[in-house]
Amino acid sequence: MQGTSETPSRPAAYTPTDRTVPTRSPQRASYDRELVHSILDEGYVCHLGFVRDGAPVVLPTLYGRVGERLYVHGSTGSRPLRMAGQADPGLPVCLTVTHVDALVLARSAFHHSVNYRSVVVHGTAYDVTDPEEKRTALDALVDHVVPGRSRDSRPANRKELAATAVIYLDLDEVSAKARTGGVNDEPEDLALPHWAGLLPLRKGYGTPVPDPDLSAGTTVPDYLTAL
Amino acid sequence: MQGTSETPSRPAAYTPTDRTVPTRSPQRASYDRELVHSILDEGYVCHLGFVRDGAPVVLPTLYGRVGERLYVHGSTGSRPLRMAGQADPGLPVCLTVTHVDALVLARSAFHHSVNYRSVVVHGTAYDVTDPEEKRTALDALVDHVVPGRSRDSRPANRKELAATAVIYLDLDEVSAKARTGGVNDEPEDLALPHWAGLLPLRKGYGTPVPDPDLSAGTTVPDYLTAL
Repeated sequence: MQGTSETPSRPAAYTPTDRTVPTRSPQRASYDRELVHSILDEGYVCHLGFVRDGAPVVLPTLYGRVGERLYVHGSTGSRPLRMAGQADPGLPVCLTVTHVDALVLARSAFHHSVNYRSVVVHGTAYDVTDPEEKRTALDALVDHVVPGRSRDSRPANRKELAATAVIYLDLDEVSAKARTGGVNDEPEDLALPHWAGLLPLRKGYGTPVPDPDLSAGTTVPDYLTAL
Repeated sequence: MQGTSETPSRPAAYTPTDRTVPTRSPQRASYDRELVHSILDEGYVCHLGFVRDGAPVVLPTLYGRVGERLYVHGSTGSRPLRMAGQADPGLPVCLTVTHVDALVLARSAFHHSVNYRSVVVHGTAYDVTDPEEKRTALDALVDHVVPGRSRDSRPANRKELAATAVIYLDLDEVSAKARTGGVNDEPEDLALPHWAGLLPLRKGYGTPVPDPDLSAGTTVPDYLTAL
């Protein structure tokens, strides 16, 4: 219940920093908290960047969000998770989520583009050590894949918890960037004979494929058919 | 015409290196050149990682492929492109492309996953300085958005070429990684009452939205209706 008189309200926007103000197309950048959350919540996979031996590494990975905190999990043997656990104070990361909404076909090659929405989070990732927070984070990771799913699955047992590392990254130094709208051709190109416009990309769900070993009578749950 | 008797054939696979052999799930890794190319060619946006002031930065950007070379372009003022042009010898980057194909819902929270295909390219990005290669790269970038499109658009003029920086990254230290198949629950969980299976993600194209200023009589080209 953010913004009510009973709870301290957060600012509606993140504070821009040197790293979150883009050098290019600053008009496409936004620091709006709700927009950032909506872009994050719509994605399945983020791209997590970190530095290893002085060189960048970018790996796709699942993530979850609880309020202003993102979680990434993996095996305790996985490289960035091990590095976040060992690094003091934490592991500098950059976490990026991108959706491509449409292809933008201009008359000029130069003005070809895509309509997209992205969020870039800069910060430091730390190991989640509190067992309660770890459980909350794992639920958030499952619910990020399918909302409501964590309540309809067997929770992690002690062995699985021990084999799983979770790191967190707070939403603090954050920006969204988006291109929307139509073609931006030069006025002198408008009469050219090339077709120009948007080609929207559609995303959707196929038919659920049940596991062959499913117990007899197990039906597709409502939270899946509702998607 | 790779592999014919007239041209030298490339090995069918990239050579694994310390950076391209994953610490986790090595059975999911592949170095197959054709698989890598197919994953790269299917994407619209890559996530380009580089190091700035010691911290990682991951930005979404368009890309194109010509044989074993990837191209990324942007304004001459854009940060990574400027850095690649100034850095000597080049800018260390990591370029990652990921497709999510299905959500994997297991009976146990622990075994939730997604089916995905990704390519991670490690290497050094350099400025493209040869004007001919720059034109080839820009065509590849447009054709990556829609195959065949570069021939049906106005090529970049001198001013646009001067405003555009292009960097290249060779496919050398490369791996693909994929999760395919069904649910991997523990045998003792199979009788649990939770629905388990795959939820495929579908991708497709919507109806083209013509630019309002389109010249009269300009019809949607065949290469778009064919998509």
